[in-house]
Amino acid sequence: MTVNQELNLKKDTGKNFTAVHVGKFSTLDQYELHMQSINRTVHGKVFLREAIDSTSVQISLNKLPAGRTVPFYHAHKLNEEVYIFTGGKGQMQVDDQIFDVEEGTVVRIKTEGVRTWRNNSDQDLYYVVIQAKENSLTADTIEDGIKSEKSVVWAE
Amino acid sequence: MTVNQELNLKKDTGKNFTAVHVGKFSTLDQYELHMQSINRTVHGKVFLREAIDSTSVQISLNKLPAGRTVPFYHAHKLNEEVYIFTGGKGQMQVDDQIFDVEEGTVVRIKTEGVRTWRNNSDQDLYYVVIQAKENSLTADTIEDGIKSEKSVVWAE
Repeated sequence: MTVNQELNLKKDTGKNFTAVHVGKFSTLDQYELHMQSINRTVHGKVFLREAIDSTSVQISLNKLPAGRTVPFYHAHKLNEEVYIFTGGKGQMQVDDQIFDVEEGTVVRIKTEGVRTWRNNSDQDLYYVVIQAKENSLTADTIEDGIKSEKSVVWAE
Repeated sequence: MTVNQELNLKKDTGKNFTAVHVGKFSTLDQYELHMQSINRTVHGKVFLREAIDSTSVQISLNKLPAGRTVPFYHAHKLNEEVYIFTGGKGQMQVDDQIFDVEEGTVVRIKTEGVRTWRNNSDQDLYYVVIQAKENSLTADTIEDGIKSEKSVVWAE
């Protein structure tokens, strides 16, 4: 176990998928995470790789309350990160360069980028963070998809 | 170019990062995508790998209007997919198994899973789709992070 976080999530599963139901982003503070590296327990951050049995990405859902600042910088060893902001406003800093983020901002950061972020607004900030191994993608998008010829049926 | 989509996004860039500002999820229909495989032009889907210069993931931001159904099934060759629902309600189907999705549902699907989804609600459905190479993740999460000792400074 690489993340010290016990989750008891409602799941749907099948041979080829795992779905978890985490709840609305506004309720993310119910989840508690002990971060050994900074010796503190944080709320509003849920790591999902183990829960969804992913073999390619670590994903977290995050809520940073109004006025809150992440108290440290960090970089990575092997993994590129992508931050997808899904609600609210704030700022990021990478290698001392500051820029605004808001709903619909997507940020890709190389392993060596030294990063932090803050919510300098009066509304909560919501975002998804993705970690995946730098330079691992070989085929992408539509060329990797295989369209089925069978007609879509939704049983009622 | 693997996706036939011209984007003219506001960007912030640095040596180790690329940030794009796509706009609120509710305005995603402004983006147009020609999908050759199904010979149709769709609105409300933005592929971002090229725009953010990612080397590990393809990411799309998506809006599926109330009542709309995706008209085909698909699977993948090399890439695992993760769907993160960020607003609204709907249903997914993987290998004929149907389950509900809503804000906070996260679904990981293996390459061979045959998938489709629909918005059977009266509100718009919003989601992020991530593609990354199956079995590519080697280190994850906190163990891959390198915490910096320098104090966080936000210049005004």
